[in-house]
Amino acid sequence: MPEYPGTEHERRIAPEALTRQVAAIFAGCGMSREDAGWMAESLVMADLRGVHSHGVLRVPEYVEKLLAKGVDPRGRPRIVKDNGAALVIDGGNSMGQIGAAFAMRHAIERARTANLGAAAVRGSNHCGAMFSYAMMALAEDMIGIATTNALPTMAPWGGKDKIVGINPLAVAIPAGKEAPIVLDAAFSYSSHGKIRVFQQKGYPIPSTWSFDEEGAPTTDTTKAIAGLLRPIGEYKGVGLAIVMGILASLLSGAGYGLESGNMVEGAIPGKDGHFFLAIRVAAFEEPRIFRRRVDGIIGEIRSSRPVDPLKEHAQAGAARRDPASVLCASRHLYAPGGLEAETEARYRREGIPLNAETLSGLGAAEQRAAGRGA
Amino acid sequence: MPEYPGTEHERRIAPEALTRQVAAIFAGCGMSREDAGWMAESLVMADLRGVHSHGVLRVPEYVEKLLAKGVDPRGRPRIVKDNGAALVIDGGNSMGQIGAAFAMRHAIERARTANLGAAAVRGSNHCGAMFSYAMMALAEDMIGIATTNALPTMAPWGGKDKIVGINPLAVAIPAGKEAPIVLDAAFSYSSHGKIRVFQQKGYPIPSTWSFDEEGAPTTDTTKAIAGLLRPIGEYKGVGLAIVMGILASLLSGAGYGLESGNMVEGAIPGKDGHFFLAIRVAAFEEPRIFRRRVDGIIGEIRSSRPVDPLKEHAQAGAARRDPASVLCASRHLYAPGGLEAETEARYRREGIPLNAETLSGLGAAEQRAAGRGA
Repeated sequence: MPEYPGTEHERRIAPEALTRQVAAIFAGCGMSREDAGWMAESLVMADLRGVHSHGVLRVPEYVEKLLAKGVDPRGRPRIVKDNGAALVIDGGNSMGQIGAAFAMRHAIERARTANLGAAAVRGSNHCGAMFSYAMMALAEDMIGIATTNALPTMAPWGGKDKIVGINPLAVAIPAGKEAPIVLDAAFSYSSHGKIRVFQQKGYPIPSTWSFDEEGAPTTDTTKAIAGLLRPIGEYKGVGLAIVMGILASLLSGAGYGLESGNMVEGAIPGKDGHFFLAIRVAAFEEPRIFRRRVDGIIGEIRSSRPVDPLKEHAQAGAARRDPASVLCASRHLYAPGGLEAETEARYRREGIPLNAETLSGLGAAEQRAAGRGA
Repeated sequence: MPEYPGTEHERRIAPEALTRQVAAIFAGCGMSREDAGWMAESLVMADLRGVHSHGVLRVPEYVEKLLAKGVDPRGRPRIVKDNGAALVIDGGNSMGQIGAAFAMRHAIERARTANLGAAAVRGSNHCGAMFSYAMMALAEDMIGIATTNALPTMAPWGGKDKIVGINPLAVAIPAGKEAPIVLDAAFSYSSHGKIRVFQQKGYPIPSTWSFDEEGAPTTDTTKAIAGLLRPIGEYKGVGLAIVMGILASLLSGAGYGLESGNMVEGAIPGKDGHFFLAIRVAAFEEPRIFRRRVDGIIGEIRSSRPVDPLKEHAQAGAARRDPASVLCASRHLYAPGGLEAETEARYRREGIPLNAETLSGLGAAEQRAAGRGA
């Protein structure tokens, strides 16, 4: 996740202070200290890794969910079907982050003995960046896989009805000396959250990101938000999103697509679904060998030749306004998660860059939560 | 998988006759009657579903592998690590189709009791279209997932070194009255096989499919084959391909990327790897309810509004020469696998359209295999 344009003008906030501030906001909304702490930690981790679309930018919307939209700050996830390697979890209408972390922890616990562990979640809500859950598997020498249902923002390829979510997939793979491989990709070129960041900053979006309501491409953030997100790889991306949505919703009995809400009226509380899978590496291969080979792949990518940045070519041309275009000018190439790991190290030193709108949103959320507590 | 341009001029071949012809060719190469039969069945199934890039077009190349490139026509796959839900299979340098089907069968068998079953394969070779294996799970009310390592044809995003395979992912999901959802997507816009079909026909390829050797987009099939396939969704697609390659190669100890060969010298026999996963629906949800909901999703897609085909828009514009552009002119939209199921029904009635080069390749392979047998 490369930096957004204009980052150099933003205030730098220390991650520890930001975490405390955000945890206090969620505690003020009635969440337990532990749950509020995890909410804060997971949102700040997204910002630290440069995924601002899923960072503390979301706090006002989450506070709204807790105080006015019917998500239960005291909701408790529980196992409702226990079939060894296969679990169904009901999130109990808790914040998605709470049910998702509960589910991934249990999938990992089952994989310790069964070598594979899967947890399908219903009764949940928006759970933030999926990489947070996939990465929980890494410390156990497991591969973590996470996917979720998302409110519909895409049409089937060739269509204009907004009935498919961008249903992201995250995969985390343990490495040795290198940063782990962490992929977290929705099946659209962009996310609504990312378009909102561009809208906040007043930048147009790349023409590959969206269609308007009639299916024509647009660089206008307002038309894009009213219109359709564009799937990666045309029918392939939307097909992948449909499949992930089914895994995330139909195995647990959660709402799929419009059953869980829409982008105008928002999500119906407690209808969201997710799916998590943990794969124990040692059941297949000696983890030391596996990690060494992952390191080799990361090194091979880093030492491979970048395209000539001075040459006019589609990779830079199509992506001129796209954060990804910075890749073309980088010193080297990255395996998935490599740039995010570097960003995290830098932001831990230098602070997290947050724009004025995110900061004022945080301030307003703080006052709102404090007012409720008083 | 929509039709290729020019299909209307091609000869129509009955699938049964084609299967017998192809089975005889592989038997002539020294494969057992059973193995040769499955080879033929899986290749003809790809043609039946319109996936000609992975159909009998491949026979001459497979015959070459068996007779001159060191793949063992009598190779036998076996389980080398048995950890309940997790299996490692050594393909014994058999044709990839043989080891892959063996592995998926065993993953399914394990999922019957453990609810999940995974098989990682090494010692294998090119195994054809991945949907064949994912679909084996459907009859058991399981979700089938299949991925494989492929010879490198892509660069990391922003790069020009051909070090990443397009490493496809196939997912098959049982439906009720509708055709099952069957997704089979490589993480490039196109495959080498599909570009070869365009080259055979003398058509240029869409500009989104490839880069030349320096990373510039090209519509020239020869430059595309010498150059790079273009990932879907830029860094997302190549990231997904890296992750699938790791699942397919590092869990089993197979070769990853260039370790399994390259596009100039070809594959090193017995270095390929695959990964299969079976998920038993009943462990999570009542299969009747699950299948009914899948039917609902398919119906929702079919009855959704297509974009206006007369309007100039990017979906048709960018895809003018792309087989996918036919979607825009279709009567209705499709869930993944829906168009393929319709194509299969039609080709079973009307015969499979095969072009002159594919037919002459088959004839030459037949003579070569017969000559060896004599």
